[in-house]
Amino acid sequence: MADEAHPAPASLSFEPLTPTAYLDRAAAAHGDRVGVLDGEQRWTYAQLHDRCTRLAGGLAPLASGRPVAVLSPNTHVLLEANFGVPWSGSPLVAINTRLSATEIAYILEHSDAAVLIHDRSFDALVDVVCAGLASPPRRIRAGADYEQLLAGAKPLHRTPEDERALLSINYTSGTTGRPKGVMYSHRGAYLQSVAMVGHTGLSPSAVHLWTLPMFHCNGWCFPWAVTAAAATHVCLPKLDPAEVWRLVREEGVTHLNGAPTVLTMIAYAKEAAPLPAGHTVRVATGGAPPSPAILRRMAELGFDVTHLYGLTETYGPAMICDWRPEWNGLDADVQARMKARQGVGNLISCTARVIGDDGTDVPADGRTTGQIALRGNNVMLGYLDDPAATAAAAPDGWFRTGDIGVVHPDGYVELRDRSKDVIISGGENIASVEVEQALMDHPAVLEAAVIAVPDERWGEVPAAYVTLREGVSVSEEELIEHVRARLARFKAPKQVTFGDLPKTSTGKVQKYLLREQAWAGHERRIH
Amino acid sequence: MADEAHPAPASLSFEPLTPTAYLDRAAAAHGDRVGVLDGEQRWTYAQLHDRCTRLAGGLAPLASGRPVAVLSPNTHVLLEANFGVPWSGSPLVAINTRLSATEIAYILEHSDAAVLIHDRSFDALVDVVCAGLASPPRRIRAGADYEQLLAGAKPLHRTPEDERALLSINYTSGTTGRPKGVMYSHRGAYLQSVAMVGHTGLSPSAVHLWTLPMFHCNGWCFPWAVTAAAATHVCLPKLDPAEVWRLVREEGVTHLNGAPTVLTMIAYAKEAAPLPAGHTVRVATGGAPPSPAILRRMAELGFDVTHLYGLTETYGPAMICDWRPEWNGLDADVQARMKARQGVGNLISCTARVIGDDGTDVPADGRTTGQIALRGNNVMLGYLDDPAATAAAAPDGWFRTGDIGVVHPDGYVELRDRSKDVIISGGENIASVEVEQALMDHPAVLEAAVIAVPDERWGEVPAAYVTLREGVSVSEEELIEHVRARLARFKAPKQVTFGDLPKTSTGKVQKYLLREQAWAGHERRIH
Repeated sequence: MADEAHPAPASLSFEPLTPTAYLDRAAAAHGDRVGVLDGEQRWTYAQLHDRCTRLAGGLAPLASGRPVAVLSPNTHVLLEANFGVPWSGSPLVAINTRLSATEIAYILEHSDAAVLIHDRSFDALVDVVCAGLASPPRRIRAGADYEQLLAGAKPLHRTPEDERALLSINYTSGTTGRPKGVMYSHRGAYLQSVAMVGHTGLSPSAVHLWTLPMFHCNGWCFPWAVTAAAATHVCLPKLDPAEVWRLVREEGVTHLNGAPTVLTMIAYAKEAAPLPAGHTVRVATGGAPPSPAILRRMAELGFDVTHLYGLTETYGPAMICDWRPEWNGLDADVQARMKARQGVGNLISCTARVIGDDGTDVPADGRTTGQIALRGNNVMLGYLDDPAATAAAAPDGWFRTGDIGVVHPDGYVELRDRSKDVIISGGENIASVEVEQALMDHPAVLEAAVIAVPDERWGEVPAAYVTLREGVSVSEEELIEHVRARLARFKAPKQVTFGDLPKTSTGKVQKYLLREQAWAGHERRIH
Repeated sequence: MADEAHPAPASLSFEPLTPTAYLDRAAAAHGDRVGVLDGEQRWTYAQLHDRCTRLAGGLAPLASGRPVAVLSPNTHVLLEANFGVPWSGSPLVAINTRLSATEIAYILEHSDAAVLIHDRSFDALVDVVCAGLASPPRRIRAGADYEQLLAGAKPLHRTPEDERALLSINYTSGTTGRPKGVMYSHRGAYLQSVAMVGHTGLSPSAVHLWTLPMFHCNGWCFPWAVTAAAATHVCLPKLDPAEVWRLVREEGVTHLNGAPTVLTMIAYAKEAAPLPAGHTVRVATGGAPPSPAILRRMAELGFDVTHLYGLTETYGPAMICDWRPEWNGLDADVQARMKARQGVGNLISCTARVIGDDGTDVPADGRTTGQIALRGNNVMLGYLDDPAATAAAAPDGWFRTGDIGVVHPDGYVELRDRSKDVIISGGENIASVEVEQALMDHPAVLEAAVIAVPDERWGEVPAAYVTLREGVSVSEEELIEHVRARLARFKAPKQVTFGDLPKTSTGKVQKYLLREQAWAGHERRIH
């Protein structure tokens, strides 16, 4: 043990990895430069560092190491939480703002969150959430309450000795009903962040617009990656295309991320017009493959799109469609097909595998399908309090993504079926089974199958096929309302068809037949 | 323990860091693409991977875990050693090709190298080296011998369970005589490599020309960084400006590194002419600050220069003069001054400190000087078999660089005096004390002081001031020859002045007085 007069020497060659260190770097190296824009407000990196250490100091006595949840759109408050919450000694739980009160209550209870920081726009929702909880978390409202906490707090800057310690918990609805708490480590997020810097070319000259929700896989680790590079964060609480275009032009945005639906929204906004020469925006897109049409349109506008692939369990993008220079000479349509592949492991990922049911790799022939499997430093520690689910997802240490793909002869992976039943609506995953369970909760419903159907605005929306119990009746509207009362509104089916369900001889519902019908005349993008 | 039928599951969320994994990535993701050019020869990344695993397989029984040394210019052999030697289970010792036989012999003995792979151009030198060793290493000559080893070997791919295991030993002459063996870890090199990718923008479209010796701090970790990004390595055994320009134009080089003297050689070659629009070469320079003149000239030619700072002990560039967008509007001369700063810690470095003699940080006022101190994941494990030197260099866990600098109010560090006595000649550090000791080895010499004097070609060269013993005499030529017989030729003084040395009252030689005299009318760049 070291005494005070003779402190133990610091380790010469070892420092535990934590993504919060990137803010230490930004404050030391670029402290006098603006790090964050949020509406009319701006903070330098030194100010951001100061605020985050004071957030940590304010939270520590309230949370005592229990998780701190945040329910907020993309404001400076949620950005600050990515540093201040870990520095307080607590894991961060960033909650999807589109969830229902029931879902939010479940997450708060399951994670044992001691504190809930929330945007004032969710006052009423949080009232409902807390009313339903036996021991609701301590509430801190963004704005005056939050600022008061910071103003009265002493700076704190706790970092774990063990770099594999829990950093954050990200809840995913996954495909199996109840949200699961995906556990991220400091080490994993640190490495994923620096890979994102490398692949997207973030630098002190970059200006990153927050079109991707920060609550999605901790914003694919970009709260830390943008900070590592000492680029500028431009907060965007609401995805308003006019505001996106204003910020792109007035703030000189160089980087943004989002699902292809976000790109569509930007590209077809009435404000859309080609950027001036010398102004390029680098876009990372994921959640679904970008279509050739949107890639062409984005290129015309001056946006350079890279396609990434990952899941909540993989800190966001564990794979990247790494652009090859030899593709520059291909036709635009072939280029778009290449770009729509999920690609290869990112800089710090272990090699992505596609494996058959027997656990061996499929041949790289572009035809044989298997399940995409990932492991390594950017794969979750596991599901919180659910070792059975963790073991089921990674029986041999390789996380099964549930996504079916092929490997092309050049080594690039392409998804053939995104765990077929998942509905991707406006970039949000909806587990069909979860909606089915909600429907079957209704006394009149005997059986239910929910599939994706085409939708002009959202790409896909859920549609329900329902068999009623004998002798009872219920209206389409009534069933939709029934689901809305239980799940986030966007998860409710947009239409309900009554009748018998097609089944296999062993009684399994043949959703693919329903899907074929619903998509006749449409091309469902293969996710 | 796992049995064969039920292998232990791989760790879901942990993989030990090793920079050799970057070649696994390149082979899996870009295996069919050309990874290495060396003269007329080209290898894909799959071929490079195969060759390196077979190099490992061939070396393992010869070295049995003892170090493998390589004496080679920038050829594919030295590049392959950066992967194949670690995979064989041995640390890599890449030897400076400019050293004398005595120095090389010392390094081979001190490191206990079991094998020496060498270029055929060093046949005669290695004969001399080995003749002087009690148990010379097993020699493998590049070319037929080397290819035979690979052809006959089974692939091997050993990686350490402990990511802090020894990866390589890089000998530095430092400033205190005998070369010291700086120990790099797998973890440190992995992290330094990915930082280099991020800062220099390496990508699959990049073409990296090897103008920096790969034996300098393992080429600043670029053998691994270029591979991580799956960029193309272009080997360059000899720094011939005409060949550099040919490769830049014909192979579309986008990246190169080197000391400012290398930049000068390129910029003032008779082949130098501005690159066509759309072709930019990103240059990382270090070892000495680039002058305004060379920065201006490089910019005119289409080269975008970034200044880095580091030492052998810090895996090469631990600091970077991170370019700030607000500097774009400054005058060219002010920009050049900004660019010549050593800057800030790189993405994965701990914050660089400048500390006074009392161990506390100097104020960031741009005036108060202190010693630059570094620690963290990209600082050496220590000096091989020299715990006393390690402890002396890092008394409190912070490595003292020996370089004196200031911190500007914006947080950027600038060197004021590069451990005053070091002579930087053509990008090579020469420890004056080492030359002094060689001189004093001569029976006629009583005292010697060696300083840098200005030189048109090399920037600086060593000059000696010698006091002879009473009653004896020796010529200038004789003394220069005496040093040449003991050290690398470039370390020998270019001139010798005889007479008394100026001293302080306590008897310390006042080299600064000699320097003032020698540099009168010249401006010695403050390193």
